[in-house]
Amino acid sequence: MGRLLIKNTKALVGTHPAGTNHLAGAAMRQLPQMEDGWLLAENGRIVELGQGVPPEKHSESGTQIVDALGGYVLPGWCDPHTHTVFAASREGEFVDRINGLSYQEIASKGGGIINSAMRLRAMAEDELFEKAKVRVESMMRQGTVAVEIKSGYGLDLDSELKMLRVVKRLKAALPLRIKATLLAAHAIPPEFKEDRNGYLDLIVDTIIPQVAEEGLAEFVDCFCETNYFTVPEMERVLAAGKEHGLLGKVHVNQFTSIGGIQAALKHGALSVDHLEVLEPADLTALVASKAGNGRTIFPTLLPSCSFFLRIPYGPAREIIDAGLPVTLATDFNPGTTPSGNMNFVVSLACIQLRMLPEEAINAATQNAAAAMGLGEELGSITVGKRASLIITHPLPSLAYLPYAFGNDHIHKVIIDGIVL
Amino acid sequence: MGRLLIKNTKALVGTHPAGTNHLAGAAMRQLPQMEDGWLLAENGRIVELGQGVPPEKHSESGTQIVDALGGYVLPGWCDPHTHTVFAASREGEFVDRINGLSYQEIASKGGGIINSAMRLRAMAEDELFEKAKVRVESMMRQGTVAVEIKSGYGLDLDSELKMLRVVKRLKAALPLRIKATLLAAHAIPPEFKEDRNGYLDLIVDTIIPQVAEEGLAEFVDCFCETNYFTVPEMERVLAAGKEHGLLGKVHVNQFTSIGGIQAALKHGALSVDHLEVLEPADLTALVASKAGNGRTIFPTLLPSCSFFLRIPYGPAREIIDAGLPVTLATDFNPGTTPSGNMNFVVSLACIQLRMLPEEAINAATQNAAAAMGLGEELGSITVGKRASLIITHPLPSLAYLPYAFGNDHIHKVIIDGIVL
Repeated sequence: MGRLLIKNTKALVGTHPAGTNHLAGAAMRQLPQMEDGWLLAENGRIVELGQGVPPEKHSESGTQIVDALGGYVLPGWCDPHTHTVFAASREGEFVDRINGLSYQEIASKGGGIINSAMRLRAMAEDELFEKAKVRVESMMRQGTVAVEIKSGYGLDLDSELKMLRVVKRLKAALPLRIKATLLAAHAIPPEFKEDRNGYLDLIVDTIIPQVAEEGLAEFVDCFCETNYFTVPEMERVLAAGKEHGLLGKVHVNQFTSIGGIQAALKHGALSVDHLEVLEPADLTALVASKAGNGRTIFPTLLPSCSFFLRIPYGPAREIIDAGLPVTLATDFNPGTTPSGNMNFVVSLACIQLRMLPEEAINAATQNAAAAMGLGEELGSITVGKRASLIITHPLPSLAYLPYAFGNDHIHKVIIDGIVL
Repeated sequence: MGRLLIKNTKALVGTHPAGTNHLAGAAMRQLPQMEDGWLLAENGRIVELGQGVPPEKHSESGTQIVDALGGYVLPGWCDPHTHTVFAASREGEFVDRINGLSYQEIASKGGGIINSAMRLRAMAEDELFEKAKVRVESMMRQGTVAVEIKSGYGLDLDSELKMLRVVKRLKAALPLRIKATLLAAHAIPPEFKEDRNGYLDLIVDTIIPQVAEEGLAEFVDCFCETNYFTVPEMERVLAAGKEHGLLGKVHVNQFTSIGGIQAALKHGALSVDHLEVLEPADLTALVASKAGNGRTIFPTLLPSCSFFLRIPYGPAREIIDAGLPVTLATDFNPGTTPSGNMNFVVSLACIQLRMLPEEAINAATQNAAAAMGLGEELGSITVGKRASLIITHPLPSLAYLPYAFGNDHIHKVIIDGIVL
């Protein structure tokens, strides 16, 4: 691995004190910067920070020296909610929607999650892996250094396992950190259309145990939503997951508020994701939970999904003002969010969610890392954490990063001390 | 200049027949494609198109051969409405808005157009030129092969001339086509706050004649809007412009509908830009004009501005359904649209304006070229037109281009037969 020295920065951004692993409420405005900073990494970890000219000894032979050319250095983006393993893009449905077709009509033409499932089942693992690898490599070039990837287009034992084995291969093949989530409860597959309990039994009695036994996932997810899975069904999934060591990260409140948040809290989930429709009682439950058990749950917003579907954006300001740790992710998937670009998510967070640049950056780094269990090793520029970083082009200010949307501001990406 | 051969394409896109220089209404769905096409350019112009393997003689020595690697070849983007010459970005105002300040409060802190004017007046021409050049070069890398650039941050004779001289230098320094628009009527400068007629006199009696005499602009513009310039004031500007050979391209209907479209029609303007607020009478006037004099006026929508300001999007579907030639542009400027990326505009057009991919591409190429008087030389892949082209990475379909938003799909950009 060796040594890496980054010098000539405008500032090191997100130099949170040791021990920080998430930021909530008003603290999300805190994004410490070390101006004119330098950073030394050894064996993939940050070992020393300083300002001005780094000591001569840090440039000894064998050290890779990276001139930041006056750019900012930020913690790399973490993306804690994606569906990056899929067989094919679905731009045909996008055109159908422009032409005025409803979701119902698109589904009846074979569209939606079931479309992705049919194609995924038919595709060999090797091809799935190659396609997903290209996508994740593109995300890495856009600054993503950790990503959560869900199953959920298999919807049967073999195909869910196939997806998660692809994720396992991605972990081995790529330098970024990857966490896997079992999302067998993404939709009822056609063969269980008349027997939804049968599918739940399959998930709980067979898929979860086998996934846990093979160590193929860290988390379990459920699409808890009107017309998808009910709250009691999600509870079954979460309980079985917990029994097998899989923490919950769940889809709730995308289109309707049906009690998913309260159930997720009851089962100690790590994150509640989507939240486009958040009722006062939902927010109250999240706040009460924070006061109650000291455990942190991450409200995770997916603004690129709202952008693409033209549905409401999650109420980031209300959630921050309630003292909670808003988190950002892409939701990259072929149906509702065909983009894995966290830079654009950060722009959307400022432009559409009215988050301050500091809040958005914390939400896409420190909180995003914590929302996949990586808060202690990623998310800030802190001695001891992984040297997984973005170096920007020279920018007039940090706020320029979200402001000048649709532009590529990234000069270099570094993962575990290695320049991509 | 020499010869250039592009081969191994998925398709040549926008191979409109000779004589096409804009597309209106239902015809905007027509985007002819030549599959597996090749293209030969000589001295910057397209001289021959074909399918399959190009004739041996086209690969003779001295010909630059570009392998498209299975990507699509499109006409380069044309961007007919920008304010790309400015002194400084304004992300501070962006943060002020997130913090809840109103436009009025930001203006009273010295923000807005007047902010840009004060900074521009203070900056030397050379520095302005260098800053604008970097921006236009970035737009070129994003596929833009022609751009209109407005003055309007000078607001006095010397500073307006300075801006337009910068545009003239950009024309000489860069390979893309540039058109200049005089927008002295962008805001009332502070020194004329109590004497708006005095400023109008200055524009009409001094600035327009001098700009025309020096050949510094092709078009004249006016920000016709409540609290900016009235319809009669715009009419004075348009009449004076016409007298000096400057055709109108005007800002109308961004926040209010006050009769600007009707006045622009009366004065034979080439385009009416913004149109976020379009009343039925406005649309009727545009349609009647089309039927009346045979002259084409281009309704130009600026979706990136709506996106950034969170104001309504222009009603593209209504305008197309009325049989008119919808046109797209970025509106690149430091206050309301800090992005010159036409790829994102095309995505927004499909995602937010509900334009079909074919309509959006025509609007951003053929109609956009025509809306700056370049319809005969740019905007389609047609023998005789300039070889100013985009080669995409391999994509599963053309609809993938707008669908997979926030990604860079461009493999190469070619301007006048030269690969960037």
